[in-house]
Parts: sequence; C-alpha cells; structure tokens
Amino acid sequence: MPPRFAFTLHATDGAARTGEIAMQRGVIRTPAFMPVGTAATVKAMRPAEVRATGADIILGNTYHLMLRPGAERMARLGGLHKFMGWDRPILTDSGGYQVMSLSALTKQSEEGVSFASHLDGSRHMLTPERSMEIQRLLGSDIVMVFDECPPNGVDRERAQASMERSMRWARRSRDAFDSGGEHATRAALFGIQQGSLDRGLRAASADALMEIGFDGYAVGGLAVGEGQAAMFGVLDYAPDQLPADKPRYLMGVGKPDDLVGAVERGIDMFDCVLPTRSGRNGQAFTWAGPVNIRNAKHAEDESPLDPACDCPVCTGWSRAYLHHLVRSGEMLGAMLMTQHNLHFYQALMAGMRSAIAEGRFAAFAATFRTNYAAGR
Amino acid sequence: MPPRFAFTLHATDGAARTGEIAMQRGVIRTPAFMPVGTAATVKAMRPAEVRATGADIILGNTYHLMLRPGAERMARLGGLHKFMGWDRPILTDSGGYQVMSLSALTKQSEEGVSFASHLDGSRHMLTPERSMEIQRLLGSDIVMVFDECPPNGVDRERAQASMERSMRWARRSRDAFDSGGEHATRAALFGIQQGSLDRGLRAASADALMEIGFDGYAVGGLAVGEGQAAMFGVLDYAPDQLPADKPRYLMGVGKPDDLVGAVERGIDMFDCVLPTRSGRNGQAFTWAGPVNIRNAKHAEDESPLDPACDCPVCTGWSRAYLHHLVRSGEMLGAMLMTQHNLHFYQALMAGMRSAIAEGRFAAFAATFRTNYAAGR
Repeated sequence: MPPRFAFTLHATDGAARTGEIAMQRGVIRTPAFMPVGTAATVKAMRPAEVRATGADIILGNTYHLMLRPGAERMARLGGLHKFMGWDRPILTDSGGYQVMSLSALTKQSEEGVSFASHLDGSRHMLTPERSMEIQRLLGSDIVMVFDECPPNGVDRERAQASMERSMRWARRSRDAFDSGGEHATRAALFGIQQGSLDRGLRAASADALMEIGFDGYAVGGLAVGEGQAAMFGVLDYAPDQLPADKPRYLMGVGKPDDLVGAVERGIDMFDCVLPTRSGRNGQAFTWAGPVNIRNAKHAEDESPLDPACDCPVCTGWSRAYLHHLVRSGEMLGAMLMTQHNLHFYQALMAGMRSAIAEGRFAAFAATFRTNYAAGR
Repeated sequence: MPPRFAFTLHATDGAARTGEIAMQRGVIRTPAFMPVGTAATVKAMRPAEVRATGADIILGNTYHLMLRPGAERMARLGGLHKFMGWDRPILTDSGGYQVMSLSALTKQSEEGVSFASHLDGSRHMLTPERSMEIQRLLGSDIVMVFDECPPNGVDRERAQASMERSMRWARRSRDAFDSGGEHATRAALFGIQQGSLDRGLRAASADALMEIGFDGYAVGGLAVGEGQAAMFGVLDYAPDQLPADKPRYLMGVGKPDDLVGAVERGIDMFDCVLPTRSGRNGQAFTWAGPVNIRNAKHAEDESPLDPACDCPVCTGWSRAYLHHLVRSGEMLGAMLMTQHNLHFYQALMAGMRSAIAEGRFAAFAATFRTNYAAGR
C-alpha cells in the first residue's frame, strides 16, 4: 500500500531541490509542473496524451467544477478521476482565487464568499467548510485550503487583514478536512502562505500555517501582476520561511523562465494555464524561446516547431503545417500546439530535476536562459 | 510494386458488392467511407486516429486547399500527404461543387468558373485544366473530373445543358490529367455522372463518360436536397448504367441509412462531412440511432455513448462526461464525438462488407434498420 503522502528529497543544489511525493494514486516527481484541467479536461488533450507528456499530476478547479457539472453530481458519478479518465493524482484549488476573478456580485465576510455564477447567475456560497466538502466530493488527492488572494498593489494594512483572515480560514479548512472521514485518510492538505510582497507578513503567515500543520505549503498571492522581479524578490526569502521537509508550491506560475528562477529559489511544484492557453492561441514555447506560429515567416518553413524537441508534434509535422492549421482556425492546430507546449514544460522540469540531481543546476539555468533569450 | 489502380470484386449479394481497390499508397476496402479532410485535416483528428477508425482513404477539398495554403505552395512543401502526415490514398474533389456553394461573384462560362475567394475576396479561375493541375500539385491519388453540379429542382432543359457541359469538361479533364506526366502514371481519374433526377439524361451521361473511359465513376448531383426517396429512385438504375468492373462512388452521402440503402443498390464508395460535423455539434451516430448528447437526460448517464461500440471513446468515457464536455464547449468534446462517429461509420462499412461476403446483406440491412430506427 503506498503511503498517504510521503515527500522524499533526493538531492539539493543551492536552494534548488529534487525529490518525489509518493501518494496512493502515484508518484509525483519534483520539481513538478501540473497541467491545468479546469473543467475536468486539460483542454484539447486526452488523459493518455497528458500522461505521455510526462505529467504526474494535474490540477482541477473547484470553482468551475462546483458550477458544472456540480460537486454532488460529480460524487454520484464516482468522482473526478473516474469522470475524466485520469487515474493519477489530482490537486484541486480551493475556489478562493477564481471566485473573486470570475464570478459577479461577490459578497465577502468572515464566514466566506457569496457570489453569482458566471454561467447562469445562480447564487452560491463558498466557505472553508464548503470548499473542503467540494474538494472531498470531487475526490481530490491534494486539497488546498480556502483562502483570500488580495490584488496586487494592496496597502500593508489591507494585506495584513486579508492574510490574517486567510490564516483563520486555514484553521477552519484544516478542521473541516480532518473531519472528512475516509477521504482524509488518503488525501493531503496544503496550506497557502499570503502576505503580498511584505516579508514580515509572509513570515507571520508561514508561522501561522506551521502552527496548524500541513502536508505541503503553497506560496500564494503571487503572479497577480507584480512582475517577475518582485515575484523573485519574495521567492528570495519565502521558501526559507516554510518547512524544508515539505513540498513548496508556487501557485499559478508561470513562463518557462519563471519556473527556472523559482526552482532556483527552492520551489517544488507549479501549475499554470500558460502552455495550454498559449497553445490554443498559436504561441509555442521552445528551447530557443517563444514562437508565434501565426507569423507569415512560418508559411513555408518545413522545420519542426522546436528542433530540440522529440515530442510527437515536432517529429510529425512542420511549422508550415501548424501555421496553416492555426491560421485556418482548425481544432487540430490547438491540439498539436497544446501537446507540444505541455511536452516542452515537462521536458524543462525533467531537465531541471536531472541537473539538480547531478549538481549542475546553475549551468543548466544559465544555458537555458541564454538559448531561451536568443529566440525572443 | 503495387498497381496504379486495380479494382477487384470479391463478392456480390444482390446489387451489393464488396472488393478492394489496390493503389500505390495502399488498399481501399469497398464499400468504403472516406472521412472528409477539407483543409488538410480531418477536423479534430490526428491522422493516426483517423487510420485507427479503419479508414483506408480520406478526401481533400480542392477549393479550400487552392485558396489556403495554395496548390503551388503545397507542391513546394512536398504535397498534401507529407504536409498533413497521411501516407495512404487521398481522393480530391474537383472544386466544382464548392466553388458554386461557398464562393461569391461567380461567373460561369464554357471555359470554366471565375470566382471570389470566401476568405479574402481574391479572384480565381477554375477550369477543367486548372482543376487537374491543382489536384496534381496536391499529389492526389484519386482525381475527380471538373464538373458542374446543378441545384435540386432544375428543369430538364437546364439539367441537360449542364450535364452536356459537364461531359465536355470531363473530356478536357481526361486530356489534362493524361498530360500530367509522372503523376498520371500513379494516380487515377474518376468521371462524374450528372443528369439530375432524369433517367434518360443519366444514361446519356454514363454513355458519354464510358466513351471517354475512367478508372471509376461517381454518381454526382445527388444529396443536394432531393430527399432519400428521390435519391434511392436514381440509385435504382444509375449504378447499372455504369461499368460493373469499376468502382461507383456516391458523392457527399450520407446518413447511416443512406449508406446502407446505397450499398444495397450497388455503390462502392462514399464521402460525407456528417460524422465529423455532427460530432462537433454534439450529435452521435450509434447502432441504436442518433444521440443528441446535449440532451439533459444524459447528465448523469454512466453508460457509454454506444454500448454496441468498442471504440476508444465508448470504452473510455460515459455519456455524462461527453454531455459535460459538449455543454461546456470543451474541445475534447468535439474530439471524442468525432472519433466515435468516424469509428461508427467505419464499423458500419465493415459490417456491410462482411455481410456481402457472407451472402447475408439483406438480413444485415434489415437488422440495422430495425435497431437504428428504434432509437430515433
């Protein structure tokens, strides 16, 4: 029987770490990138294709799934894994971030957030207790605490008040998760550090979370428009404020160079819509930098999207064909661009894991940055 | 070395026939259904996925491809097969039908048709000679003569004049194809019978085509709104007007029960956008009749789309999941519905081939009709 949740560090190189998380539904190699499967599908990808990119875990969105198909319905259908055909670990967010960014007529209180669905205007309430219940009904493997993510640029007073509310909600999330019966015996719960760009608030948040105790710790409230330099500024100290023997997860990040810089600073897990969303919009990520396949210069280019990539897209079709598909609005264009981008992201993570294990992460990062910048 | 084009009949059962066409790029089992790959892609399907449904040959549209990416560009890129990654036979239509239905500002003359592109308004000219040249540049395996397809309900005088022009264009197509050099030594050319719903005109058209001589013969001008009864009325005599030792191709057909009725009357080949287009719109074809997966009754239905189908979609996901995907506008919904529909169409063709080979086509057709009608 695999453990409920066991994080093992295999090697460190500077602040960068590589290891694995063993869970009942499978092993997650870290640093890990989690493709986003918002509405019970990683867009334009079958589960077997997602797995073939090298993904060990995907992310599902509580906000989207509670509205459609609905958490209780999902439970009646046997849970998210069975529903979508993905049998490995799934991390679900708490809904806290997206309820503020996507829904309308939100009303926040100490109890939670009431809101109108962006789909049909129906009213719903999310609280720490309801978020835990939904994530349990979905059958999540890694559950995130319900928190509040303040916007970028908020003043210190508001940042502190918001962080402190998030810490009270983290406590309620812990209690609700622990009373979830059988699910609590096989799933894990992660806390989320808040505190905006303030080191002191970040330290207080970390202390509050560690006092409660979690299986892993997310750095939240970043990637909200503060820019890479400010984000790295927080990552210069935030990972050290969190336990070294637990995974650290940077939520909603990011571009390839964000991932390299964050791993360099001690982050173990990531999720982001960028490879999938960009793929649907005709942007590819390659070892030589981003490529906009819609550009006319690709119309008769018989070379692969990325000559340094061995994915099925790069070994099967030319830039000219992808250009034609994307320009023509063909679904296959979105499918192939997404498939390549997810392969690239996983290859980047695999490259970082090997480099850390072999004590050459700095050289890997420097080479990556040089090559990646050359193509911009 | 496989032959350029060799049609072998293995068995007949009433007017129904089964056999195979051997060509340099592969064997086509008949009766055959050709998925439509309009713009160098069978929409929402990778080539290997198309092949896995059982398709031996696909169709490409001359009108769409001449406009984007363009025939000369396609030739510079090595032809349609290499461009899209499909190495088996491709049949291309002549562009004659779609130039009338999709383009604007068309001007018809004895020379051909001049028109404005539906994409950018640019003016183009299609003649029998240019259509043959384009199909050669694409690298087509089965080339269709350039013809005129009159609308449904046209009077006899206009039907006759149009048919006679199509026969003159068939002669010019034959001459242009034969002067196509190396391509003519490995590709085949099909004539197209016209004559609307008039038996005498159909006979005259067939005689004119046989006088010229082709590798196969299409029944054209049907599936333009005349209805199944009128179409079957023509198919009661049209196949007999054409050579028994050459394949007979019913263009643009059709629904599953159209295919069964047409095979029953001696047709060997079909193409239609219905399985792909319907799939994208949420309609599935099953052995128990059509299924509209958007219907609310499927929201918690854990059964497969078609319990009698062994395709990857029916063995992998529930109606509830497909309902969720299609209702949510998720690309994976269109992908999976298309995949199932193409599997169903190929399974139907395979079922008919076996039934004919074993002399039980009438029973197969009767059982199919009973089951298919039960689900409507």
